[in-house]
Amino acid sequence: MKRRAFLQAATLGAAAGTIAKPAIAQSNPEIRWRLTSAFPKSLDTLYGGGETFAKLVAEATDGKFIIQPFAPGEIVGTPQAADAIAAGTVEMGHTCSYYYVGKDPTFAIGTNLPFGLNSRQTNAWLYHGGGNELLNEFYAKHNLIALPAGNTGAQMGGWFRKEIKTVEDLKGLKMRIAGLAGQIMGKLGVVPQQIAGGDLYPSLERGTIDAAEWVAPYDDDKLGLNKVAPYYYYPGFWEGGPAIHMFINLQKWNELPKSYQAAMRAAAGYVNVDTQAKYDAKNPVGLRNLVSNGAQLRPFSQEIMEASLKAANEIYDDISAKNPDFKKIYDSYKAFRNEEYLWFQVAEYAYDTFMIRARARG
Amino acid sequence: MKRRAFLQAATLGAAAGTIAKPAIAQSNPEIRWRLTSAFPKSLDTLYGGGETFAKLVAEATDGKFIIQPFAPGEIVGTPQAADAIAAGTVEMGHTCSYYYVGKDPTFAIGTNLPFGLNSRQTNAWLYHGGGNELLNEFYAKHNLIALPAGNTGAQMGGWFRKEIKTVEDLKGLKMRIAGLAGQIMGKLGVVPQQIAGGDLYPSLERGTIDAAEWVAPYDDDKLGLNKVAPYYYYPGFWEGGPAIHMFINLQKWNELPKSYQAAMRAAAGYVNVDTQAKYDAKNPVGLRNLVSNGAQLRPFSQEIMEASLKAANEIYDDISAKNPDFKKIYDSYKAFRNEEYLWFQVAEYAYDTFMIRARARG
Repeated sequence: MKRRAFLQAATLGAAAGTIAKPAIAQSNPEIRWRLTSAFPKSLDTLYGGGETFAKLVAEATDGKFIIQPFAPGEIVGTPQAADAIAAGTVEMGHTCSYYYVGKDPTFAIGTNLPFGLNSRQTNAWLYHGGGNELLNEFYAKHNLIALPAGNTGAQMGGWFRKEIKTVEDLKGLKMRIAGLAGQIMGKLGVVPQQIAGGDLYPSLERGTIDAAEWVAPYDDDKLGLNKVAPYYYYPGFWEGGPAIHMFINLQKWNELPKSYQAAMRAAAGYVNVDTQAKYDAKNPVGLRNLVSNGAQLRPFSQEIMEASLKAANEIYDDISAKNPDFKKIYDSYKAFRNEEYLWFQVAEYAYDTFMIRARARG
Repeated sequence: MKRRAFLQAATLGAAAGTIAKPAIAQSNPEIRWRLTSAFPKSLDTLYGGGETFAKLVAEATDGKFIIQPFAPGEIVGTPQAADAIAAGTVEMGHTCSYYYVGKDPTFAIGTNLPFGLNSRQTNAWLYHGGGNELLNEFYAKHNLIALPAGNTGAQMGGWFRKEIKTVEDLKGLKMRIAGLAGQIMGKLGVVPQQIAGGDLYPSLERGTIDAAEWVAPYDDDKLGLNKVAPYYYYPGFWEGGPAIHMFINLQKWNELPKSYQAAMRAAAGYVNVDTQAKYDAKNPVGLRNLVSNGAQLRPFSQEIMEASLKAANEIYDDISAKNPDFKKIYDSYKAFRNEEYLWFQVAEYAYDTFMIRARARG
């Protein structure tokens, strides 16, 4: 209630019946928000993004705007976070848009689509390709607004108990994989499973499942899946550059002083680059650990990649035919991807190719 | 003087003899700074980074901390910017560390070294690999502190009047290329030239020079060099992921309220991701324009790349032997690069490779 009183004072431009305050205080109300993180504290890079965000906003507002991060389940579970934020039960969350594909498949595009944009291209589309505007037009229908606030880079394809070389090898395979990626794999004969991270080790050990995707070496190394499912495939083509977002209740966002909105936008940008940087700094260490502890690195075969791309495109066409929001945003995303790889294949790819080969030669 | 009075008030926690202010105002003093940009307004992505930064800081501080950007030469020229900031003539600048290699070659590493880290890896090193700490320890000796605030991604190798295939073809070539990149090319027989962007077209047209490097397609397209030097080489191995920085006078930074420092750190992070995103969104358009107007894309030959890498490593060893600051920071940078490409060659590179080939097949 205190927060609301301050907000009214700021909105009305008057002290609104409370103790008279100097004019300057009206634009710096004391506000306390809660942030529900979709990520367990064990995923310290992702959970830490919410903490870094809250700290920067608090510092930039001289301690006036305090946002307290909570782990999943402390206020609300990850699957319920979007609804809870939209309802105002919690003011904001740090989460992935694609967790909410059950509400509408259009939510998937906010994070990334399988065979979509890589990390840098995702930011290019969001900040300068119309992506943020298109997504926020859609999110507004759900009483939400989102700020990009993190990316993992291309993830790994996950852990398999046996080698898989052909699409035939995928038939009947029980794999922990969710969302559109699960639908794509389902088209190839995989039986998608929904299992929490903490249950992956025993499930793979007992053979309840045959495979599981998680994140990338830094996070994967914590789970020790290399001991029970040693074949470590790449790339995770369903997560070539997934964005993490700050989701915010739209009314509560609109009620904020402009200065607090600016502090949040700036802090989200910082967290965006900082999260990718932390993953990029930590993943090499995870990869070394995993390989020295028996992980067998394997690329997905061209056959599996191509069959998956075909299945993905069929799914996107099916959804587009039924869902105008998806179609509108997907058309922008797809056209942008075509342009991005036109350019990335030149200087960026040639540079990385030379550097990778030079490193291999020592 | 007004600014200083406010700062003292904030520092002393008292009104310091001026008109009594409410307590809250003491931590939000009115401050005006100037920012000298190293980039002409025609490089709108880079110059715009300074504007975006200033706008975010002003908004986040509720109009209390105003930073006004100036184009090169309006206050001080780009080559003199670091000295002017260190002296306090201008409070801060948006510039590239490697413009100041004449003061100390260690400045080069802040931006990037030829055959160094790519854009994401640069951020990984700066934010989570000890890079920011090492650089700021060095910059402090020059009375400066720096915040990463932009990257261009891998640049192009520039414009050549004739095709070059071998190191022999480089002998005697007059090329506009500066800094360590110029030294490397010099070892291969190139005669490095220093020419301003606006003079490149007539210099290439008249044959005063044979080649010129600039930035990447979006910026290069504005100069029209394709008409006078059609061979457009890649990658610009001397700029695989160059960082742009906000350089700030160290005393003036230390005198700022913590809230203004936080607003600047957050805004610099936002500008970092935003600048890279804008280049990535604009470069495909520039590339299409250039190729449709006669630019002939050519990769540097393996022979030229390898000879350049060898020359670069010799130069780094020479400088390291003489300059302990360079050696300390280069050793960190080099070890980090080795780790980064260990990881990037797996999921990230495999993903881009598949996507580039899938695009080529349609």
